[in-house]
Amino acid sequence: MTHPATDQPKDQSATPFLEVIPLGGMGEIGKNITAYRYGDEIMVVDGGLAFPESHQMGIDLIIPRIDYLQQNAGLIKGWILTHGHEDHIGGLPYILTRMPRVPVYGAPLTLGLVREKLLEFGVKDGEIDLQEADVESRVKIGTHFDVQFIRMTHSIPDNAGYILTTPVGKIIHTGDFKLDEEPRDGKLSDLGKIEQAGKEGVLLLISDSTNAERPGHSVSEAEVARNLETVIAGCKGRVFMTTFASNVNRIQNVIDIAHRQSRRVVMEGRSMLKYAQVAQQVGYLELPDPFLTNDEVGGLQDQQVLYVCTGSQGQPMSVLSRLAFGNHAKIALRRGDSVILSSNPIPGNEEAVNLVINRLYEIGVDVYYPPAYRIHASGHGSQEELATVLNLARPKFFLPWHGEPRHQINHARLAQTLPRPPKRTLIAKNGDVVRLGPDEFKVTGTVPAGAVYVDGLGVGDIGDDVLLDRVSLSQEGVLIMTAVLHPTPSVEVVSRGFARANRDLDNQIRKVALEAVENGLREKRRLEDVRDDMYGAVRRFVRKATGRNPVLIPLLVD
Amino acid sequence: MTHPATDQPKDQSATPFLEVIPLGGMGEIGKNITAYRYGDEIMVVDGGLAFPESHQMGIDLIIPRIDYLQQNAGLIKGWILTHGHEDHIGGLPYILTRMPRVPVYGAPLTLGLVREKLLEFGVKDGEIDLQEADVESRVKIGTHFDVQFIRMTHSIPDNAGYILTTPVGKIIHTGDFKLDEEPRDGKLSDLGKIEQAGKEGVLLLISDSTNAERPGHSVSEAEVARNLETVIAGCKGRVFMTTFASNVNRIQNVIDIAHRQSRRVVMEGRSMLKYAQVAQQVGYLELPDPFLTNDEVGGLQDQQVLYVCTGSQGQPMSVLSRLAFGNHAKIALRRGDSVILSSNPIPGNEEAVNLVINRLYEIGVDVYYPPAYRIHASGHGSQEELATVLNLARPKFFLPWHGEPRHQINHARLAQTLPRPPKRTLIAKNGDVVRLGPDEFKVTGTVPAGAVYVDGLGVGDIGDDVLLDRVSLSQEGVLIMTAVLHPTPSVEVVSRGFARANRDLDNQIRKVALEAVENGLREKRRLEDVRDDMYGAVRRFVRKATGRNPVLIPLLVD
Repeated sequence: MTHPATDQPKDQSATPFLEVIPLGGMGEIGKNITAYRYGDEIMVVDGGLAFPESHQMGIDLIIPRIDYLQQNAGLIKGWILTHGHEDHIGGLPYILTRMPRVPVYGAPLTLGLVREKLLEFGVKDGEIDLQEADVESRVKIGTHFDVQFIRMTHSIPDNAGYILTTPVGKIIHTGDFKLDEEPRDGKLSDLGKIEQAGKEGVLLLISDSTNAERPGHSVSEAEVARNLETVIAGCKGRVFMTTFASNVNRIQNVIDIAHRQSRRVVMEGRSMLKYAQVAQQVGYLELPDPFLTNDEVGGLQDQQVLYVCTGSQGQPMSVLSRLAFGNHAKIALRRGDSVILSSNPIPGNEEAVNLVINRLYEIGVDVYYPPAYRIHASGHGSQEELATVLNLARPKFFLPWHGEPRHQINHARLAQTLPRPPKRTLIAKNGDVVRLGPDEFKVTGTVPAGAVYVDGLGVGDIGDDVLLDRVSLSQEGVLIMTAVLHPTPSVEVVSRGFARANRDLDNQIRKVALEAVENGLREKRRLEDVRDDMYGAVRRFVRKATGRNPVLIPLLVD
Repeated sequence: MTHPATDQPKDQSATPFLEVIPLGGMGEIGKNITAYRYGDEIMVVDGGLAFPESHQMGIDLIIPRIDYLQQNAGLIKGWILTHGHEDHIGGLPYILTRMPRVPVYGAPLTLGLVREKLLEFGVKDGEIDLQEADVESRVKIGTHFDVQFIRMTHSIPDNAGYILTTPVGKIIHTGDFKLDEEPRDGKLSDLGKIEQAGKEGVLLLISDSTNAERPGHSVSEAEVARNLETVIAGCKGRVFMTTFASNVNRIQNVIDIAHRQSRRVVMEGRSMLKYAQVAQQVGYLELPDPFLTNDEVGGLQDQQVLYVCTGSQGQPMSVLSRLAFGNHAKIALRRGDSVILSSNPIPGNEEAVNLVINRLYEIGVDVYYPPAYRIHASGHGSQEELATVLNLARPKFFLPWHGEPRHQINHARLAQTLPRPPKRTLIAKNGDVVRLGPDEFKVTGTVPAGAVYVDGLGVGDIGDDVLLDRVSLSQEGVLIMTAVLHPTPSVEVVSRGFARANRDLDNQIRKVALEAVENGLREKRRLEDVRDDMYGAVRRFVRKATGRNPVLIPLLVD
C-alpha cells in the first residue's frame, strides 16, 4: 500500500523539486502535521491530535503516524507551529519526544500552551528546543527553507500562516484562518504579505477548507461580542457563560463586558483556568478586576456575578454538565440564573450538548445559544474569505487542506470560478508525497500515514481489530462458557451486557453447551474441536432463542 | 416514583374532569402515544417507536411502557391513529397484540402501513380491528369521546389532527403538522375546523413543538419540488435520489419531474419499495410510466434514468451506503453520476451521513444536499405556523407536545407572546396524569412510563444495567481470568477489545492473578474471597500498567 517516498538525489543544488508530505489534516479535520522535504532537509509544521469518532470506542485521542519522520529523523532541520489549538499542537508531547532535538518555532501563546502540555507529560524543561517566533517574524530552517510568518485571524490569538520561500518557489500556507475585520486586538490578517507574494509569484497555495461549503463571510468576533453584551445586559440574575477555553479573545471580550456591567468574573473548570493563566502570562488577557473564586462571591448580589465555565461541548465532567445535572459540589443552578452557550457543538457532540440544554430548561434557567442568538462565530473563513486569499495569492498550483473531501473539493471548485484560477489543483490525502517544481505538481508516491490510537497509557497498542471487538461487545455483550471436563463434564455460563439475569435462559445455554461437550468427548474429538463444537452449538441456540449475536468466549478446563 | 393514577369516581355523570395521560412523546421526540380517560372509558392515540441514542448500544428500537393500559385494559374503548410515521405507528405490533380487541381508526395510507407491519410480525389478518376513517371523518369512541379528524399537512399523506369533544369541553390535538401552502395534492390543512372550534371554545390545545425554536415558516413541499426540478435538469448522467421512504408526496413530485425530463424511475431498497407499494394500493402514487428495475435500464442512456433509493440517513445496509462504499451487487457509481440527498440527517445520524457524502465526493460523482441546495423541507411547522394554530384555536389551556423540554418551553413562551395567550400552560412529561376540567388543568399524579428496549427477539429483557455493561465493554473491553485451583493452582487470561495481543502483559496479569490466588489458598480464605482478591489485584495492576479499566470477569474452577 505504501512505498518509500523518494528517489530524490543527494546533490541538492541539482534538485529540481520539493516534496510536500501531509501526514495529518489532509482529507480530514484534525491531527494536522505537514512535512516539507527538499533534498536531504525536512521541515515540519504542527503536530496535532484528533478526537475519536463514535465507532472508535474508548479511544482517548488520536495522533498521526510519524513513521516517515522517524525513518528520516536525521534530515529534520526544524519545526514550526501555526497556533495553539489541540488539532495543531495536541500531539506534540508524543511526537517531539520521539524526534531529534531541533528548533521548534512558535508564537508566545502557542509556546506557552505547548510548555504547559509538555509539563503535564513530564517532559523536562529544555528537552525540547522551543524558540519564540512571533507571527510577524522570519526564520530560516536548514539551508533551504525560509519561513516568513503571516498573522492571520482565527479563534485563538497568535495564529499564523506562513510564506515558505524554497529553491523551487514560494509556497503560501494560510494555516487556519478567517478574515475577521474587527478582531479584539485590532490586528487584522496580514493580507499585504499575501498580496506582495502574489505579485512576486506564488507557486503553491495551501489553504484552510473547513468552511468551503459556506457562502458569504464568517461572523466577526466583534459582532459576537456586541450580541453577548446585549444578552448579558438582559440577565437579571447570575450568568454562567461557556465557550471554548482557547478562545482567549472571546473571553477577553466577556471580561470587558462583565466589567462594564459591574459583574465580577469567576473562572470555573480546569482547562478554563489553564488557558487563562497561560494567556495572562504572555500578556494576552487584561483583567480590569481580578478574578474571584466561587467562595469569594458570597457577599455579591446575583446580578454582580458572571461565571466563565467549561462545558461548551457537553463533556460529562465539565462544570456546565455538573451544573445541569445538579452534581456540582459548590454551585446549584436555580430559576433566575442565565446560561449562555457561546459555542456550537462540534460534529459528534450534538447529542451531549442537547442533553445539557434540555436539563437546563428543566431546571428553569434561561438558556441562550445559537442560532436564535448570534453569539458564536466560526474561526474559519467562508467562501468570500477563501476567494479573497486565492485572488491575492494567485497561485500556480493549489492544495485545499484542512478539510474532508467534501470541503477540499468545494474549495477546489470555488477556486475554478475565480478570475485567475490555479493551473492545477490536487485533492491530496494523508501520506501522499506531492512533488512540486516550477512546472510540476503531482502525487508521486505515498508514505505511511494514518491514526495511532491513544487509550489510557497505551499509545498504538490498539488497532482496528480491537476496536471491532469493542463494537461487537457494545452491541450484544459477551457470553463466556467455561467447560470443566473432569471428573464429570460441567459448564458454567457468565454474561455481561447480553440480557437481564434469566435463569431459564442460562440453564438452556448450559445444557446446549454441555451436550456439545459430552458428544465431543464421547466421540473422542480433539479438545479444540470440542471447544469449537460448544461455540457453534451455543451460537446457533442463542441466535435462535434471542435473535442476538453476543461475543462468545468458550473456555475449556481439561 | 409512580403511583396509581386516579381516584376517579365510577359514576360518570358526576365526573367533572377528564385525564390526559401521555405515555410517550411528551418531553421527547419519538414513541408517541397518548391516553384520554373519562370515568371508566379510555381512548388511546397512536403507538409509536423511538430509535436509540448512542449510549443505548445495540438496541434495535424503543417502545413505550404501557403498564397503565395493560392494567386498565378493560376500559379501553378505541384507538385512533394520526398518521403512518414510525414514531406514531411503529410500536403498534408490540402494543396492540397485548391489548383487547377494540376498533383502531386510521386513514387509508396509515392503515395500509399498519397492515404491512402487522403482517411482518406474523399477526393474523383480522386479529386487530382496523377501521378506515379518513382525515375528514368523525368517529365516536365509547360513549364520551367524539373524534373529528382534521386534515393537517405533514411529510406523509393522510396526516390528521383531531378535535376531541368530551363532556368537559373540546380538545384540539394538532398531531404532527406544518401549514404547507402548496401541498402536492392541493389539500391544505383544515384550519377552518380549528377556527370554528376556537369560536365555539377550546378548552385545551395539544400542539406539535418540534420546530418551536425555528423562526418564520417552514419551506413548502412545492418549493422543494421546484428546486429538485432545477437540480435534476442540470444533471447530465444518471441520477440517484434519496429521501425518507415515507415521504410519498416528495416521491410523487420526483416521479413527475422524471417524466417531464424523460427519465425512467427505478426504485431501489426494501423500504422504498414497500412504501411505494402501499401508497399505490391506496391510490396515492400515480405513475405516468411504470417503474423499471435495474435490470431493465440497460438499453437506456444515462440521462434517461433516475434511481430513487434508500439511505438518506447513512444507514449502513441502505442502497446509497452500498453505492458509496462500492459494495452494491449490481450498480457501481462513476464520474458523471449525480447523487441528490433530499433530506437532512436526523440528530444522531450526522456522522454516518457525512461519511457517505465524503465517499461520494471521493468517487467523483456530483453530490447535491441541503443547505447549499434547498431540496428538503421539515414536516413540522415553525414559529409562524405554531402561532397561527394558537391564534385560531384560542385555547384556555395549552399542552406543548412532541418535543424535548427545549421545544416545549419555547412553544410555551411563543404562546405567551400572542394576543390571546392561554390561561395556563403545562410542561408535561411522559406518565403525567393531567387532570382537565372546565376550570382545572394540573398534574395530579403519575403512572409508569418510559422505555422498553427491543433487541433482537427480546422485548424488555434489557434494562439500564445491561446497557451500562455494554457501555463499559465498549470503552475498554473485557478481560477474563480463569483460575483453576487443583491440583496445582493456575490462571488463564483471555481478553477482547482490551489491547492488541501482548504476551508480556498477559504473563504479568497471569502472574499477579496467580499470586493473589496462591496467597488466598495459603491463608485458607473462602473461595469468594480468593476470587475477590484476584479481581482486586488484577484491577490495580491493569490500571497502573495500562491506565485502563476493562470489565474484569474472575472465574474460579475448584
